[in-house]
Amino acid sequence: MKAAIIGGGVIGGGWAARFLLNGWDVAVFDPDPEAARKIGEVLDNARRALPALYDRALPAEGTLRLHDSLAPAVADADWVQESVPERLELKHKVHADISRLAPAQAVIGSSTSGFKPSELTAQGARVIVAHPFNPVYLLPLVELVGAADHCARAAGILRGVGMYPLTLRKEIDAHIADRLLEAVWRESLWLVKDGIATTAEIDEAIRMGFGLRWAQMGLFETYRIAGGEAGMAHFMAQFGPALEWPWTKLMDVPEFTPELVELIAGQSDAQSGHMSIRALERLRDDNLVGMMRVLKKTGTGAGGTIGAHETTLDLPSDDGLPVTVHRVIPSGWTDRNGRMNEARYLEIGAQATERFMEMIGCDAAHAAKGGGYVTQEDSLRYLAELHAGETVRVNSQVLLAEDSETRLFHRVFKADGTLAATVDTVLLHVDMATRRGAPPDGPMAARLHEFARAHAQMPWPEGARR
Amino acid sequence: MKAAIIGGGVIGGGWAARFLLNGWDVAVFDPDPEAARKIGEVLDNARRALPALYDRALPAEGTLRLHDSLAPAVADADWVQESVPERLELKHKVHADISRLAPAQAVIGSSTSGFKPSELTAQGARVIVAHPFNPVYLLPLVELVGAADHCARAAGILRGVGMYPLTLRKEIDAHIADRLLEAVWRESLWLVKDGIATTAEIDEAIRMGFGLRWAQMGLFETYRIAGGEAGMAHFMAQFGPALEWPWTKLMDVPEFTPELVELIAGQSDAQSGHMSIRALERLRDDNLVGMMRVLKKTGTGAGGTIGAHETTLDLPSDDGLPVTVHRVIPSGWTDRNGRMNEARYLEIGAQATERFMEMIGCDAAHAAKGGGYVTQEDSLRYLAELHAGETVRVNSQVLLAEDSETRLFHRVFKADGTLAATVDTVLLHVDMATRRGAPPDGPMAARLHEFARAHAQMPWPEGARR
Repeated sequence: MKAAIIGGGVIGGGWAARFLLNGWDVAVFDPDPEAARKIGEVLDNARRALPALYDRALPAEGTLRLHDSLAPAVADADWVQESVPERLELKHKVHADISRLAPAQAVIGSSTSGFKPSELTAQGARVIVAHPFNPVYLLPLVELVGAADHCARAAGILRGVGMYPLTLRKEIDAHIADRLLEAVWRESLWLVKDGIATTAEIDEAIRMGFGLRWAQMGLFETYRIAGGEAGMAHFMAQFGPALEWPWTKLMDVPEFTPELVELIAGQSDAQSGHMSIRALERLRDDNLVGMMRVLKKTGTGAGGTIGAHETTLDLPSDDGLPVTVHRVIPSGWTDRNGRMNEARYLEIGAQATERFMEMIGCDAAHAAKGGGYVTQEDSLRYLAELHAGETVRVNSQVLLAEDSETRLFHRVFKADGTLAATVDTVLLHVDMATRRGAPPDGPMAARLHEFARAHAQMPWPEGARR
Repeated sequence: MKAAIIGGGVIGGGWAARFLLNGWDVAVFDPDPEAARKIGEVLDNARRALPALYDRALPAEGTLRLHDSLAPAVADADWVQESVPERLELKHKVHADISRLAPAQAVIGSSTSGFKPSELTAQGARVIVAHPFNPVYLLPLVELVGAADHCARAAGILRGVGMYPLTLRKEIDAHIADRLLEAVWRESLWLVKDGIATTAEIDEAIRMGFGLRWAQMGLFETYRIAGGEAGMAHFMAQFGPALEWPWTKLMDVPEFTPELVELIAGQSDAQSGHMSIRALERLRDDNLVGMMRVLKKTGTGAGGTIGAHETTLDLPSDDGLPVTVHRVIPSGWTDRNGRMNEARYLEIGAQATERFMEMIGCDAAHAAKGGGYVTQEDSLRYLAELHAGETVRVNSQVLLAEDSETRLFHRVFKADGTLAATVDTVLLHVDMATRRGAPPDGPMAARLHEFARAHAQMPWPEGARR
């Protein structure tokens, strides 16, 4: 699959990264002589963050090409994404060219927040709005607006690269999310202008409180909880009259004077100026990855999208022993020195055990019948340091499968083949009701013993106790 | 310390839980015959969530008493928090009583979002606004408004129970956060009323996108990043003109008809009605705890507040062997069956090793001089299951301290004294530059050998290899 990215700023670069890291080839056209550097910087950020969302490795990265004209960029493209500056004449010109030069079956999306599809297509271009959120390589949301058949096709493709398409029922100015953002931005400008709060104080008022709620549940589900057992109608009866109160300054528009710009820019410097933009981006991405991994565990919101995408990622094939883990190390797994914490070696070992168990058919269905494995002992040896962003690969050897007891030996390899650690795991198959040992039987036991017989032919692992 | 909670609904109950779980005694006055049940439910939620934020146990829970009149509740109180319904005559009456009956030095706070301090104190009551956010036992933010000396004293106390006081420069209607919430709520009502989006779609537009940004950085720092290297003024130059666009419906107030209430309540049922309010609360709390633990690791926002509070929590004293961990198991550490994952046993073991190293003086200063310990091997035995919410206690025995090598044996105990696991750790003291073994020296080595000599007198641990 090939994506053509027209306009390579922060948003275009984010799209390029999203497609590339999901295995697409990407062609970029941007007349800016700095385009290659800018996209490279976004890609560096994306490579350290996106793969860390998943407990499986993403497909091999596609090929990136920069072009100095539009025609070769859009040739053979399956998706064309326009992210040029928000000037309607410019958008019309670019989309006339894209519609003429791109393959007929390509989805053509515009990243615009300022224009509606009817404005973009006024001169006959075939384009839909596909409005993403920064950082495009991490945040799942894409607002789709425009022709229904194009939006439906676009939605399928976006899900394939791990995104969450939200198709609007009607076109409106600014789509949905930016209307909410705009309302808060405007109110916040008044608070700063009137000297009620600084930019830092407003940020604390958000991130110490409702921001944490919105990351997982949004507005209405949060208020549903606030209503308690009496429900949403009760909540609205309480909060409804407040709408009549003179709370908001939003009836008026703050005048955008140089003084106001200076006031806000100065407060922002005082708040965040001790960190470079790159450092802020890395901090933001580390936090996003960590929070989205938490949400993945509970299947909530953006975490549900990550989890669904993860199930589509395949493990590499057998390398003599079954490959049971293939993944990237998240930055949240490392200590202050950037080295992976020892407990995460065991987490990788436990993932390998879980995958091996799936391979022999010890799955949710087996658990429902009351059987399962519990770990008795683990022995770990640390042979090489691992760092955030590294890809590791684990294979697993059956050392023992007798009665209720099974012993697995997991080898954790770095990408260059260096052995980084071994995890030696002793498991007991039990009746989950009594937690007493009970030998496995049926097809599961047969598959286990088949592995055990084959692996018994292999050399005893160095460093494993007899 | 004693807190008096006047009004025991979701907010009052949340305050009660926040104080109780931080070791305060709490007295509640609420004439509602259901008050005890309601507070009990909030407390159950709080007990399963708040302690899991920290890697150290909170102080022993205080005593909760329910009173059927105000006077005994506020007697001897250090903090009185009023959370009665938002009717000004009622607030005036309650605060006249509190001002008369509470100790002169007590902080008196009101949870009101609807009234300004000048309105509350109009009849002479001494009270400040201390406006919290639901769930009060987890979210750090408290907006303080009112007399400067009272606010300063209140801020110190709130920090002591792990909260983040934000003192407003001027009183305004709805304080800060609720003005922002109000703006979004109003815009969202229009989107639903006009059939642009459902409640579920609006929630997705938030939590799949900017909600994840706001949980960690708020509004202005996020936009600072969006401005890129050119900075905040550049961002404003781009986004400024948009304020003139006719994006927002907020110039007008949606009429709060029964039809609109029904529309929204019905959409909310379709979106979330498959889960009870209690189940939604537990999901919310699990997500909050997990995300705040992620932010604690990077020191961002609410995570910074948690981290600062954690440093004030002490370990229990020596029980013959040094106590190196005393903590509660977070729900995010367990598998689908509620049992703690094996890797988390090793995480607890690694925390014990880290604490032991601090005890002998192997700290950041030692690392700065180029020395440190790296783990060579870990051996774990699992003896009893652990579950979310359980408190565990670890003690650590030095089995070996010769040349560069040190061997620690950590025993992980359940609250009832059952041995749940052992972690046997072999460490090597190295020169961090070369990663080669180098025996420790100086006062650190002396402290290590003192432990080793004392522990050599103790029995060899059962199950540890010689």
